[in-house]
Amino acid sequence: MEAITWLDDRIEIIDQTRLPWEEVYLQLSTYEEAAQAIKEMRVRGAPLIGLVAAYGIALGAQSIKTKSKEHFLAELRRMAEVLASTRPTAVNLFQAIKRMIAATQTGEDITGTKATLIAEAKAIHDDERQATRLISQFGAELIGNGFTILTHCNAGPLATGGDGTALGAIMAAKEQNKGINIIATETRPLFQGARLTVWELMRKDIPVTLITDSMAGHFISKGDVNCVMVGADRIAANGDVANKIGTYTLAVLARENGIPFYVAAPITTIDLSLSSGDRIPIEYRSPEEVTHVQGVPVAPQGVQVANPAFDVTPHRYVSAIITEKGAIKEPYQMTLSKLLDE
Amino acid sequence: MEAITWLDDRIEIIDQTRLPWEEVYLQLSTYEEAAQAIKEMRVRGAPLIGLVAAYGIALGAQSIKTKSKEHFLAELRRMAEVLASTRPTAVNLFQAIKRMIAATQTGEDITGTKATLIAEAKAIHDDERQATRLISQFGAELIGNGFTILTHCNAGPLATGGDGTALGAIMAAKEQNKGINIIATETRPLFQGARLTVWELMRKDIPVTLITDSMAGHFISKGDVNCVMVGADRIAANGDVANKIGTYTLAVLARENGIPFYVAAPITTIDLSLSSGDRIPIEYRSPEEVTHVQGVPVAPQGVQVANPAFDVTPHRYVSAIITEKGAIKEPYQMTLSKLLDE
Repeated sequence: MEAITWLDDRIEIIDQTRLPWEEVYLQLSTYEEAAQAIKEMRVRGAPLIGLVAAYGIALGAQSIKTKSKEHFLAELRRMAEVLASTRPTAVNLFQAIKRMIAATQTGEDITGTKATLIAEAKAIHDDERQATRLISQFGAELIGNGFTILTHCNAGPLATGGDGTALGAIMAAKEQNKGINIIATETRPLFQGARLTVWELMRKDIPVTLITDSMAGHFISKGDVNCVMVGADRIAANGDVANKIGTYTLAVLARENGIPFYVAAPITTIDLSLSSGDRIPIEYRSPEEVTHVQGVPVAPQGVQVANPAFDVTPHRYVSAIITEKGAIKEPYQMTLSKLLDE
Repeated sequence: MEAITWLDDRIEIIDQTRLPWEEVYLQLSTYEEAAQAIKEMRVRGAPLIGLVAAYGIALGAQSIKTKSKEHFLAELRRMAEVLASTRPTAVNLFQAIKRMIAATQTGEDITGTKATLIAEAKAIHDDERQATRLISQFGAELIGNGFTILTHCNAGPLATGGDGTALGAIMAAKEQNKGINIIATETRPLFQGARLTVWELMRKDIPVTLITDSMAGHFISKGDVNCVMVGADRIAANGDVANKIGTYTLAVLARENGIPFYVAAPITTIDLSLSSGDRIPIEYRSPEEVTHVQGVPVAPQGVQVANPAFDVTPHRYVSAIITEKGAIKEPYQMTLSKLLDE
């Protein structure tokens, strides 16, 4: 199973809205289809949506019919804007798009630039694979023998187009025979934990117990959890972490009960342009995600709903951020910028 | 709408598993039907299940065919055991059963005792109505003008057979024109917040916003919530509170963000026989409640699930316990026992 595969004139993705019931693969041939797949969360996970956007630009570029490089670049930027407008919180999306646009500044002709853009998208994919492999190794070092690790949402291969981040570390620890157990929160409203994390862990024979989001505190306070490990959608310069709604609560519970709270993310998730997490734009999604489950209503018609998809965990709750260059700790203001300078 | 009505030879309840889609009323004529309704959570809420058990014993008593008072009492105790075995956490159930059994110690003949048991169940109902009316008034005093109150699960009229506890206070504050807003957590796995609390508040024209359980931390940390107010299923002698799973997390979030965490419950919820909350039995319910929503699967088949229905909030997080005798504070060890002595 690959979350995303490049097939020369299109990309193939697994439709994550249909998991775990059906393994439906979708072919995306245009930048519009790539944008739509991101918007509808058929692909999700910060690193993966960056990849889909990069390939989307590469696909879009091939379709531009003009002999003017200027028109070509204008059209490409328009496509990039469509892809950038799909989801606001994960910065990997914007980093990938920025890198694709930068790849056009080579002075090549249009044919050359079209080839360069495909190569650049593949290079981003390779870098992401390499990054998640290293994150998984560094993350596994923080996991002790016999640990029970609580994770939230999905930060596995499905989220990255590589080995995964938090779940990559968990899978690496399993390969090291550390005898670990996982508690996976279901992750309302869209059940990424129940549907995707549980599915990925069961396929790897890693013992996993599914709980509702509201049960995490119970098990953490009983001493049943050794650490919390999650991914991230954007990390500000001071170490504040935006991640799936509910993450902040887990961080507070971890600190209150004296266990570490780890964030695993590639460097593309770090956004030094934002001084702190309160500047990270938080996506609010449709009320139906809360009022309906797979089309079945769970609340009275007409109820007012708030549906923020992410929250921000202040850096003081974050025990370590695990990147492809190793795990860093407070003071994040310093350690993060040093990491990006290396 | 009444959560429970006594109809001389049966009780009528509203089937809470069918709300908010249908207002289905069920007639319970036997103690077995009463026990079944509690077990299947057609009635729920600590005070209400106490009432249903009391009426269930009254109904059971009428059906006993014997001329021996001894046999009559043995049979009644057997029925009481069936009712007591339905759910383990809410102590109101056991308090109500105990009070019903105590009412048989009057030396009357069987016919007299049968009548006494009906009268006693009605008296418990009256006491509960009176208690929730007072709790609502005392609770409303803690709610300031323009407050946004976050509540969890359902502690409304549906939970009590009276005015409600936490939601009773909220409704009383609304009647005092305090311009309040409510944030209701959906309360997985059974959605009592989404289905019941939202429904009750919308009927009273009280502005309510529905969120998933995982979103509470986001809104509390943003300063959007003035206090958390919930009910309780059992309160130990030291003030530790068992309530719907997820309550402990809300208490931690409230303290971390400097807002009060209030528990509203009648005195029948207090169990001085347990020195602390870790002695309160926690009910674990069926995995299907987590893996399925209204019959629709949300997780892979065969996944291991933990489904504790309650958690325990240590007393140090509880700003006040609101009872029919007023709101009490730390040291609960002293204030609780003083309250019950009065």
